[in-house]
Order: sequence, then structure tokens, then C-alpha cells
Amino acid sequence: MKEFIIKANKAVTNGEINLKDLPGSSGRLDLLCRCVNSAFFLSHDMRRDTIFYSVNYGSPNPPVALKFVGSELKRVSPDERSIALFIKKALEKDASELWKESTSGIYSSKREFRDIILEKKNEGKRIFYLHLNGKPLEDFEFKDDEDFLFVLGDHIGIGDKDEEFLEELGAEKISLSPLELHADHCIILVHNILDRLK
Amino acid sequence: MKEFIIKANKAVTNGEINLKDLPGSSGRLDLLCRCVNSAFFLSHDMRRDTIFYSVNYGSPNPPVALKFVGSELKRVSPDERSIALFIKKALEKDASELWKESTSGIYSSKREFRDIILEKKNEGKRIFYLHLNGKPLEDFEFKDDEDFLFVLGDHIGIGDKDEEFLEELGAEKISLSPLELHADHCIILVHNILDRLK
Repeated sequence: MKEFIIKANKAVTNGEINLKDLPGSSGRLDLLCRCVNSAFFLSHDMRRDTIFYSVNYGSPNPPVALKFVGSELKRVSPDERSIALFIKKALEKDASELWKESTSGIYSSKREFRDIILEKKNEGKRIFYLHLNGKPLEDFEFKDDEDFLFVLGDHIGIGDKDEEFLEELGAEKISLSPLELHADHCIILVHNILDRLK
Repeated sequence: MKEFIIKANKAVTNGEINLKDLPGSSGRLDLLCRCVNSAFFLSHDMRRDTIFYSVNYGSPNPPVALKFVGSELKRVSPDERSIALFIKKALEKDASELWKESTSGIYSSKREFRDIILEKKNEGKRIFYLHLNGKPLEDFEFKDDEDFLFVLGDHIGIGDKDEEFLEELGAEKISLSPLELHADHCIILVHNILDRLK
């Protein structure tokens, strides 16, 4: 099982999403939509072995965590607008401690970025933090039967405190490229590394 | 220099683009927009060493070729809607034999998919055809100072005749993954291979 989590510093936390302006007034929701695309969409197929989390810290009601479960997703198309419509439905629900399903495979809850990571660590998952200054990809060994969580930042990054938290947790800091890449592009690269193990 | 070309079998060939329905009535224009995103966008930067071509074969006026030149692009944002607006402007111009610029770095012309590939071959570029059944990535050697053209298909593929054409031209058939991937995801993987040579 592969799981990804992104801290979306500015992404909106209610359903008032302007579909004509995902980058601006919705707090880079376009990036989140592309992350969902990268996490799940294959040509004529979907990745059922993947879960993607976004924890939104934008206004008016941060944080709201969203969870997308590949094995349950239905009717989602790969384009940003379609994905944004599903996110809108999820954010229209009042988030509580429990995960609430809005449409098939898409859940929201009132949960912090760190709490989800900690939960995954306690489940025994291997935690990677993707960062330009991490150790190069070639220094790591991956096994097909391992369970992973990959932690991603948005255009702002996850911040010093969350970086310290990850370090204390023993997260492995990995760099996929000598260039600074968008989170959705990193997801593609991670999938490819693991696909080629098979 | 890295160049990419996609045959977009159904993508529209005039400016009548419904921004609320890029996948359907615009002939999978969402995929083209994501290819442009993948070809050029880095976090806080753009790839100036890349050119991306799309040759659209949808109605009403096929073919129309679009050219995006990384070193000249201005004001384009990474989201699909923003890129679609620039494509709309390019497709609103009457296409002729010559490349006509619509906005900075974006050109259109009345030109066939094969003609562009042939031109690149004659310029001495190394031509790769990305395909699930190609030889695995590991069998190839890339050099940082080579010039490349990578040929991509959409959800329909490039068809038997164009495949024969590429074979006769000596294109190298390469597979990036054991899974069938979207063209925009392939672009990310190609960039990463070449970035890591540096």
C-alpha cells in the first residue's frame, strides 16, 4: 500500500470554491486536484492500492483533512475541474473527528497533518519526507511488500516545526531530483520507482 | 534541448472551447493542458530548455499544430483552465503553413504530426517513441548534451501508420513503466531521467 500526504497551507476549508479560480481564491486547489490525478490515474485504469491525504490549512475553518481511497473511488475524471467538484462536495460537509464520506472513496475530517502522520507511523509504515535537500533516491532501497507514507509540501513547504516532528519520528528525507518539483510531479516519480520493482 | 510531441486525435482545432468541459466537447483538451504543465512547470521556476508540440486532429479543421517554447513563455499559470485559455487564443487564429504566434511563446500552424517529426529527424535529433511495449528504460543511455524528441500518444494512440513511419525513421521505442501511463505523466518521468544526468 502506498499513501501520500500533503500539507496544503492555503487550500480552502469550506465548500465555497470558485471553479474559475482554483489557484487564487481557493488557495492553490489546482495543485491538490493535480495531486489526486497523479495519485490515482493510469491510462484506462486507476491505482487501487493508493491512498492520498490533503490537510488543508486555508480559511475559514482550518484544518480540514481530506482522504481519497483508490479502491473505493468512483466516477472521478482526471481533469482538475471534475476533481475540484468532488473536493467541493467533501468540503461542504461539517468536518468532525470521525472520517465522513461525501462521495464514494472521498472522506473529510477535522484532523491535523501531524496526527495523520503519527497514526501511519504507529501502523508501522515507512515514512519518507520528499525534499530537495534529502538524500538522493539512489541511496535508498525499496521493497515491493513494504507499506509507505510519502510526505509532501506545497509551494510554501511544511515549515520548521513539522520538519522537526518528521525528523524525531525517524522519517527518511529523500530527494527525487536536483530541481525543485511540484508535489503532483513528485507523486508520479514515486509511483514509477515502486511500479518498476514489480 | 528536449522536445516533446503528442498526437491529439480528438483535440479541437478552433477556438470554440468550453472551459467547463475540456475532456468532453474539447476532445481531451484537459490532457493537453496537463502535458503543457508537465513540460514546463517547476516549483517557482519554468523549464526554458523545453519545447512542446501538440498536433490536434479533432473537428472542425484538422490538423492544427501548436508549439510551446519554454524560453519564450510568459504569464502562463500551471492550472488547466489558465493553459486552456492560452490554447483557445492560439486556436482562434487561422492556421497557415507558417508558425504564427498568438501569445508569447505559443504558436500555431497547419502542419501534420509526421512532418514535424521528420523535421526534427533532419535536424539530427534523437527520436524516442514512448510505448508500453518498448524496451525498458534501463536499456538506453542518455547524454546530457544530446538533443531529443520524445513522441507521445493520447488515450487513442498514434495508430499503425504513424508507428510504421517512426520505425522506418529509426525511432527508439522506449517503455518507462510496466503500467500504461498518461502522456503528461510520461513527460514528468522523461524530464527526471534527464535532470538526473546533470
